[in-house]
Amino acid sequence: MVTERIRAEYLLRTTGDPARVAAVIAGEQSSGTFVRLPGESDALRERSAARVETLEEVADNGAPALPGAHPDSAAAALRSFRMVLSWPFDTVGASIPNLVATVAGNLFELREVAGLKLLDISLPEAFMDAYAGPGFGIAGTRALSGVAEGPLIGTIIKPSVGLGPEETAELVDKMIEGGIDFIKDDELQADGPACPFEERVRAVMAVVNRHAERSGKRVMYAANLTGDLDQMRRRHDLLVELGGTCAMLSLNSVGLAGVAAFRRHSRLPIHAHRNGWGYLGRSPANGWDYAAWSKLWRVIGVDHMHVNGLANKFWEPDDSVIASARALLTPISAEAPRVVMPVFSSGQTIRQAHGTWARLNSADLIFCAGGGIIAHPSGVAAGVCALREAWDAARAGIPLDSPTASPALRKAMETFR
Amino acid sequence: MVTERIRAEYLLRTTGDPARVAAVIAGEQSSGTFVRLPGESDALRERSAARVETLEEVADNGAPALPGAHPDSAAAALRSFRMVLSWPFDTVGASIPNLVATVAGNLFELREVAGLKLLDISLPEAFMDAYAGPGFGIAGTRALSGVAEGPLIGTIIKPSVGLGPEETAELVDKMIEGGIDFIKDDELQADGPACPFEERVRAVMAVVNRHAERSGKRVMYAANLTGDLDQMRRRHDLLVELGGTCAMLSLNSVGLAGVAAFRRHSRLPIHAHRNGWGYLGRSPANGWDYAAWSKLWRVIGVDHMHVNGLANKFWEPDDSVIASARALLTPISAEAPRVVMPVFSSGQTIRQAHGTWARLNSADLIFCAGGGIIAHPSGVAAGVCALREAWDAARAGIPLDSPTASPALRKAMETFR
Repeated sequence: MVTERIRAEYLLRTTGDPARVAAVIAGEQSSGTFVRLPGESDALRERSAARVETLEEVADNGAPALPGAHPDSAAAALRSFRMVLSWPFDTVGASIPNLVATVAGNLFELREVAGLKLLDISLPEAFMDAYAGPGFGIAGTRALSGVAEGPLIGTIIKPSVGLGPEETAELVDKMIEGGIDFIKDDELQADGPACPFEERVRAVMAVVNRHAERSGKRVMYAANLTGDLDQMRRRHDLLVELGGTCAMLSLNSVGLAGVAAFRRHSRLPIHAHRNGWGYLGRSPANGWDYAAWSKLWRVIGVDHMHVNGLANKFWEPDDSVIASARALLTPISAEAPRVVMPVFSSGQTIRQAHGTWARLNSADLIFCAGGGIIAHPSGVAAGVCALREAWDAARAGIPLDSPTASPALRKAMETFR
Repeated sequence: MVTERIRAEYLLRTTGDPARVAAVIAGEQSSGTFVRLPGESDALRERSAARVETLEEVADNGAPALPGAHPDSAAAALRSFRMVLSWPFDTVGASIPNLVATVAGNLFELREVAGLKLLDISLPEAFMDAYAGPGFGIAGTRALSGVAEGPLIGTIIKPSVGLGPEETAELVDKMIEGGIDFIKDDELQADGPACPFEERVRAVMAVVNRHAERSGKRVMYAANLTGDLDQMRRRHDLLVELGGTCAMLSLNSVGLAGVAAFRRHSRLPIHAHRNGWGYLGRSPANGWDYAAWSKLWRVIGVDHMHVNGLANKFWEPDDSVIASARALLTPISAEAPRVVMPVFSSGQTIRQAHGTWARLNSADLIFCAGGGIIAHPSGVAAGVCALREAWDAARAGIPLDSPTASPALRKAMETFR
């Protein structure tokens, strides 16, 4: 939603008087100090203060209070509130870094706060003018990768680290021969001396290009160019020169200003890895909800974002994964949809295709499997075919174990249980 | 400490078999996937795998498990471990962004993890060659501000937002007349249309320069130039041109690659604000300890870092504040000390000088007061004098309420209780 004022929605937990606590938070994030200052007129406050727009009680999740919360949570019951704050645009300006200092600054540290999750953010149109948004998104990614419909079937080069440039290229060769649509570096593989970026990318792109010339299909290789900004720009330029079609970066490693600067430079789809998300989003007591956090990067302009996967190897429940993917596919506004492609990964096999389709009702996504392809007993090609067939079946409303299932899919069903 | 391998120390909480859990974490952050892959030889694993260096049980803090932790924490008791992992340098390289993807990546999301705090990081010398570190630090800040000993007495322009450029400059004028050493913008004040950076800095620097010409003392004004990278560089250049001596930025808003790029450009001390620290560090269950987090910025090269203050208005206990300040003042190594100046703020008055000195045994710090100066009944000059006198007394071992206390200090003692 595009709004006139900047708005942020929170899940607030407190043992204090909710109206007073909300006012303290709004004060801290606008004109706050602990004594009223000379020169701070009512007119000035009115012009610049944050406003509490909504404060309604919701069911409490029973999580414990953050340390240092007052009044003491042992003495009074914790209550939860959906709180919407708003700020005048003129005190912040159309700057994502300064927005973050405003909606996600000191407030998490207030003693009145026993828990605080930032759920969503709504921004004035000026932000959409200041940041270009995704340069490719779903349509651009499909055009570049030559996958007109259904998910891009992808893989991650594993082991994460240890392979040299040539070994990586050999694995890529095998994957492309097997019919993969998308290949990404692991986020741990960037530019270490054991597998330098330039050597790796030259070796890999030689393989990608050879196959593209033969088959007409240029497999999308997301090269992890995470690093300092000048390095990322140089790596991007090399990648473009070599015919690369995707730049991967670790969002929490690079940060907002770095990604925004890279976006202004980039001529490639940006594949955004969320590693580190656990320290931002896993605690029920404080931090970010994925919808709010991902919106920052969507406004800046990444093209793909990781959302984990159903029945993943991590802690995250399926509901949370689907909510994240839905958030990415929901337009921010009609004028500036800034939809990005969700990337499913982590322990994904043919077993997750039907569930993902059933719950998301979209195949505008990248479906990454590592072991789920390479562990297929008949080889990589069978592994890729089985995944694609599973997705086709899901989209056509055919069960996984239909009598029409191919031998490759049957073998996959035996292997991945 | 400078080490050969990259090392990271964690507080791990789990209900699982600790040795197995540590191995899972080390695997996830190096060669991990859920099936053993062809081509993944023992030699390759040995060369590239993360290693569990230390795993010793420590007293558990009794905090609840993170959601999704297995084995179910209801069925087994949570235990805490000090875990040190190490990585070969060659798989990562001397890159802070890629270091973060390695030591603070997916591991927080593992289901075996019921709690994980990153306590400290040790880096090979190559990181010190790749990043310049603080350009000014304590000595450079003292030289530029003309404060040879004792803390820099500082203030924050308040209200945080609402004042225009001229009103800001008037407040700065009053503060400099009152004898302040250091003035900073609020982190909420950057470049909004209501108080654009350029107009504000021109107005403020005219005042700073006028006083400097008269008195020979150039008060250090930390102008908040947080924004996108190109903006920050332009604002820096303007600030230098106008005779400014300090650049403030919000670390969590700008991010690692942005701050590193700014550091390479900057000719000014960098005043680093930590707003947003609450979502990284407040949860006892997961996230960062300040010592680990601040080390990243010290290696990159900021000069001042916020640490909150004793008896602050936020949740943080004094022990935690002092531990943070001590971390900043402890050299990383003899060759690369990268010591930065701690910034104390939040509800600070003459009441915190003795306690801060007693616990830190250092006055190499910036002591920022807002209301603690401006609310002094005899005015700003008396407010600044009282603070300086309180610190002088603390350093000389004289009690605050000594018979020799000046009228300004006596009045401050009546006002701030």
